[in-house]
Amino acid sequence: MARIGFVGLGNMGLPMALNLIKAGHAVAGYDVSPAGLEKLKASGGSTGKSAADLAANSEIVVTMLPAGKDVRAVYLGDGGIVAAAKPGTLLIDSSTIDVESARAVAEAAEKKGLEMLDAPVSGGVGGAQAGTLTFIVGGPEAAFAKAQPVLAAMGKNIVHAGGAGAGQAAKICNNMILGISMIAVSEAFVLAEKLGLDKQKLFDIASKASGQCWSLTSYCPVPGPVPASPANRDYQAGFTAAMMLKDLRLAQDAARAAGVTTPLGAEAASLYGLYVGQGEAGRDFSGIIRFLRGI
Amino acid sequence: MARIGFVGLGNMGLPMALNLIKAGHAVAGYDVSPAGLEKLKASGGSTGKSAADLAANSEIVVTMLPAGKDVRAVYLGDGGIVAAAKPGTLLIDSSTIDVESARAVAEAAEKKGLEMLDAPVSGGVGGAQAGTLTFIVGGPEAAFAKAQPVLAAMGKNIVHAGGAGAGQAAKICNNMILGISMIAVSEAFVLAEKLGLDKQKLFDIASKASGQCWSLTSYCPVPGPVPASPANRDYQAGFTAAMMLKDLRLAQDAARAAGVTTPLGAEAASLYGLYVGQGEAGRDFSGIIRFLRGI
Amino acid sequence: MARIGFVGLGNMGLPMALNLIKAGHAVAGYDVSPAGLEKLKASGGSTGKSAADLAANSEIVVTMLPAGKDVRAVYLGDGGIVAAAKPGTLLIDSSTIDVESARAVAEAAEKKGLEMLDAPVSGGVGGAQAGTLTFIVGGPEAAFAKAQPVLAAMGKNIVHAGGAGAGQAAKICNNMILGISMIAVSEAFVLAEKLGLDKQKLFDIASKASGQCWSLTSYCPVPGPVPASPANRDYQAGFTAAMMLKDLRLAQDAARAAGVTTPLGAEAASLYGLYVGQGEAGRDFSGIIRFLRGI
Amino acid sequence: MARIGFVGLGNMGLPMALNLIKAGHAVAGYDVSPAGLEKLKASGGSTGKSAADLAANSEIVVTMLPAGKDVRAVYLGDGGIVAAAKPGTLLIDSSTIDVESARAVAEAAEKKGLEMLDAPVSGGVGGAQAGTLTFIVGGPEAAFAKAQPVLAAMGKNIVHAGGAGAGQAAKICNNMILGISMIAVSEAFVLAEKLGLDKQKLFDIASKASGQCWSLTSYCPVPGPVPASPANRDYQAGFTAAMMLKDLRLAQDAARAAGVTTPLGAEAASLYGLYVGQGEAGRDFSGIIRFLRGI
Repeated sequence: MARIGFVGLGNMGLPMALNLIKAGHAVAGYDVSPAGLEKLKASGGSTGKSAADLAANSEIVVTMLPAGKDVRAVYLGDGGIVAAAKPGTLLIDSSTIDVESARAVAEAAEKKGLEMLDAPVSGGVGGAQAGTLTFIVGGPEAAFAKAQPVLAAMGKNIVHAGGAGAGQAAKICNNMILGISMIAVSEAFVLAEKLGLDKQKLFDIASKASGQCWSLTSYCPVPGPVPASPANRDYQAGFTAAMMLKDLRLAQDAARAAGVTTPLGAEAASLYGLYVGQGEAGRDFSGIIRFLRGI
Repeated sequence: MARIGFVGLGNMGLPMALNLIKAGHAVAGYDVSPAGLEKLKASGGSTGKSAADLAANSEIVVTMLPAGKDVRAVYLGDGGIVAAAKPGTLLIDSSTIDVESARAVAEAAEKKGLEMLDAPVSGGVGGAQAGTLTFIVGGPEAAFAKAQPVLAAMGKNIVHAGGAGAGQAAKICNNMILGISMIAVSEAFVLAEKLGLDKQKLFDIASKASGQCWSLTSYCPVPGPVPASPANRDYQAGFTAAMMLKDLRLAQDAARAAGVTTPLGAEAASLYGLYVGQGEAGRDFSGIIRFLRGI
Repeated sequence: MARIGFVGLGNMGLPMALNLIKAGHAVAGYDVSPAGLEKLKASGGSTGKSAADLAANSEIVVTMLPAGKDVRAVYLGDGGIVAAAKPGTLLIDSSTIDVESARAVAEAAEKKGLEMLDAPVSGGVGGAQAGTLTFIVGGPEAAFAKAQPVLAAMGKNIVHAGGAGAGQAAKICNNMILGISMIAVSEAFVLAEKLGLDKQKLFDIASKASGQCWSLTSYCPVPGPVPASPANRDYQAGFTAAMMLKDLRLAQDAARAAGVTTPLGAEAASLYGLYVGQGEAGRDFSGIIRFLRGI
Repeated sequence: MARIGFVGLGNMGLPMALNLIKAGHAVAGYDVSPAGLEKLKASGGSTGKSAADLAANSEIVVTMLPAGKDVRAVYLGDGGIVAAAKPGTLLIDSSTIDVESARAVAEAAEKKGLEMLDAPVSGGVGGAQAGTLTFIVGGPEAAFAKAQPVLAAMGKNIVHAGGAGAGQAAKICNNMILGISMIAVSEAFVLAEKLGLDKQKLFDIASKASGQCWSLTSYCPVPGPVPASPANRDYQAGFTAAMMLKDLRLAQDAARAAGVTTPLGAEAASLYGLYVGQGEAGRDFSGIIRFLRGI
C-alpha cells in the first residue's frame, strides 16, 4: 500500500480519494476549501498543510484541479509540488487541462527526477463515486505501469495514449467528436420531427446504418429510444453543457496552438457557448437539442 | 413474376434492372440515353418508347433518376407516368431527391388510384451490382408489403420508414449525421497528428469511448486502423464527395422548407462545397481530411 | 396618368398603392383579405374581383406578395395575370422572392408579349408610407424606363440592376452582406464589453478604419453611438429579425440553385434562425446582439 | 529629442526606427538577427548588446515583436526590459499580440514605476516606410500624451482607445469585423457572378445601400470597381492572408479568455485557416474570394 497525497477534493476529487482509502492506501488530502478535508478525515484520511507538504511526504501525488493555470500554479509555483517532491515520487494529474500546460509541468517534473503522468478521466461524478472512471493516460511506460494499481482503485478502464500530454490530447480529440456528433444527432431529430418522420424510426434506421454513433445509440438526445439517456429525465446531467463547452474550448486552444483548422470543432464550441449563455450551463450536454428547437 | 417498367438505366439503374431480370421478372426499360437500353436488351430485357409507354404496360414501375426535377417531370409532366399508368399500378421511385418532390408525386399518384413508394438506396454502384442495396422506404403499408419481393431482388435490407416521403427524410437525416461525423473524425485525426498523438492510439481509445461512430470504426479517414476504408487506397470512392454534397444540400433544402435550423448540417454542406470546389468531386467523401490538411 | 392594378394590399402594399393614388393614378386593388380593399376604396381607389380581372383592365400591374410561390400562383396559375393581361401591359413585381421564380414569371410574361420587371424594395413600412422606398429593378431597359414615373411615386431611389431577376439577385446579395456584417459588428461589441473596451471608443476607432460598415455607422447595435438606431429603443423594428432570416434563406436558396458555396451566409442564416427561435422574430434584426449575449 | 531604444528590427520595426532617426531622435537598436542592426547603423543609429542594455540606457523603449510570448520574454524574462529600465522610462509595445499578455506586461511595468503603452499599428510595411501608420493606443493618459511626438514620427493617426490592453482590444475588434466583412463581400460577388448579376452593378448598388462596408468600397475583392484594390494586381499584399489569420486567432483567444461567443469570428478564422492551408499565406487577404471559387 502506498502513501498518497491528494490535492483537490471537490465533486470529483473527494470520491476518488475515498476510493483510494477503501483500497487500503494511506491518503493525505489538501484543498483550499475545508469542506472536502473534513469529509476525508471522517473517512479515515489525514490532511496536509499545503500541496508542497503532501508532496514532500508522499510516494504518489494525485491532483484533480479545475484548469491549466491551477495545475501550473500547484505544480510549478513557489512552494509547488515539483519543488517539494523527493526524487522518484510519482505525480498523477487527473485534471482535464490544455495540452501545453500538461507538457510544461511534465517537463519540469522530469528535470527534477520525478515521474509524471497526465491522466484525465471520463465518467463524471457517478463514475468517480462508483470507481468506474476511465483514465486516459499520457507519460512514460514505466510510470504508467507503476500507476496502474492506484488508478485501478478509482477506475475501470485505464488506457495508455502515449507520452507526456497524450492523455489530454486523446481526451479532447474524443470529446470534440462527441460534442459535434451530439449536435449532429440533435439536428437530425429536429429535422425529422418537422418532416413528419417518427423518432423511433429514425433511431432504428440510423443506428444500423452509417449515421450510427455513440451520441445516438448510447446517449440519444430524444426521450424513448435509449431509456437510460438524460433526455428521459429532462436532461439532468450526466455530463453538463458547461463541461462540454470547457472541453470544446480546450480543443480549440490546442488547435490554435498547433496551427490546425477544425471548423466543425469551432462551430460546436460556438453553439455550446450560445447554449450555455441561455442559462443552461448545468443541464446535460444532450440538452443542446432544446436550443436547436428554441428551448 | 411481374411485368416491371424501369426508367433510368445509368450506373445505378442498369445493374438494379439486371438483378430484376435475374430474379425472373419481365423487365422493360427506358432511358433518354441509349447505352443502358442496349445492355438491358442484351441481358434479356425489352425496351419501351417512353416512360409513359412503360407505365401503361407494367404492373410495377421503378425509377432511378438524378434529381427531384427529373422525378417531377417523368411522373407529373405531359405524358408522364402518373397519367399513363393504370389504376393499381405500383410505382417505386428509388432516386434520392427532396422530400417535397417525393410527396408531391406521391399525392398525385394517390389521386389517380396508384400506389407509390419513395425508396432511396444506400450502398452505391457496388451494392447495386451485388444486389445488396439498402432500401429506405416511405409510403403506405400495403404498397410496402407488395414491393418487398421486388426490392428483395435488388437489395438486402429493406426498411419501412413511414408514410410518403419518409424514405427520403430518413435517408437525408442519416446522411447528414454521416457527413458531419466524417468531418468531426477527420478534424480529430488532423489535430491528433499535430499534437503528436498516434493515430492508432486515438482510434483504439475513441472507438471504445463516447467518440465512437461509424465514420471512425467502419470508414476511418486515415489509412491503417480500418484496412478496408477508402483512406487505404488514396480515397478512391466508395461514396464520392459530390454525392455527399448532394445529400447535404438536400438536407438543407428540407430544413429550409420545414423552417428548421441545422447549423452543423449547414456548415458541413459549406465544407463539402469548398472541398468539391478544389477539384475533388470524384474522390471518396472521407477525403475531406485532405482538405482540412491543405490537400 | 395610368390605370394601375395593385395586387397585395398588406402592410407594404397598401401605403404603396395609396401613394400611387396621391400621384394621380387610377388605382384598382385586389387582395384575398378585405381589410386593405376597404382602406383603398376609402382613399379613392377602386377594387377588382381577382388579380386576372385587374390584369385585364390595367395598363400597369403592381404586385406585392409574401413569397415566390404566391407570385408564381398569382402570375402563372389558372386565371393568372399573365394569361389575363393584354399585350403591352407592364407588370411590376415588388415582392422579395427567389431569383428562380422571378425569372420563371418574367419568361412566361415575355412569351405572352408582356413587359415584366422584378422590383423588390428596401426601406420597410416607414419607407412605403413616406414614399421613400428604394427599388432595385431587374428587366429590360425599355420597361425600366416606362416604369420610372410609377416607381418614383412610391420611392426615392430607383436603380436598374440588369435583366430579369437582377433586382432580386442584387437585393439578396446586398442583404446577405448586411446580415453578416450586423452579426460581425455585434460580436465585436460583445467582445469589447468583456475586454473592458469602451463602446464609444470602439465606435470612434472602427468607424474611421477598415471595420467601417453601414451596420456600424448607420445602424449601430448598441445604444449611444448612433442615436437613431433601433438599439436606442429596445430594438423595436425597423427591419425585423424574421425579415432578415427570410432574405438570408433566399440567398441560400439562390446559392444552392447556382451551385455556389457561401459559408458565412449559411452561418448567418443559422444564427438568425436560432435567434428567431428564441421568440424574437418581431424584434429588429440588430437585436441579434441580445442573442450573442444570452438575451 | 529623446534617447530611444528600439527592439525588433524586422520588416516593420526597421523602417519605423529609421523614421525616428529622421525625426532627430538618438536611436539604439537590438534584434536577435543582425541584418536590421547593420542597416540601422548605416543610417545613423547605434546598437545595444541586449534589450536590457537598451532599456537601461534609454528614455523611451519601443518594441516590435512577432507574438505575445516574445513580448513576455523580452519584457518579463530574466534580464528583461522591465527589470532593467530606470523608473520613469516610457515603454511602447507596437507588436500586435493578445490582450492578456499586453495587460500582464503593463501591470509588471507599472509595479516597477514604469510607464507602459500597448500601441499596435495598422498600415503595413508601406505605412511603416512612409511614416503613415495608424497607432491604436492603450494605457494611461499621461503616458499617451508623452508618447504622442514619438508616435507622430512614425505614423499619421494616433488614437487613444483606453487603459492598458485597450489598443490591442480595439485592433482585434476592428480586424475581426474586417475579416468577416471581406468574406461576406466576397461571397456576395461569387453569388452574383453565378446569378448573372454584373459585378459593377452590385458594387454600385451595395456601396450606396445597407451592404456598404470598407471591404467593399475601399478594398473591393474583385478587379474593376476600386482600381487601387489588390484584386487589380492578382491579390498581391497588401495585408496578407497570414496576417489576417493571426489577428482572427488573437480575437478568438481573447474571446475564449473573456468567455465570449463570437460565432462568425470563429468561422472566419476557420476559413482563413483553410485558405492559408492552400498555400496562399502570402497573398492579400482579399484573395479569400479565390478560395470561395475553388482557387
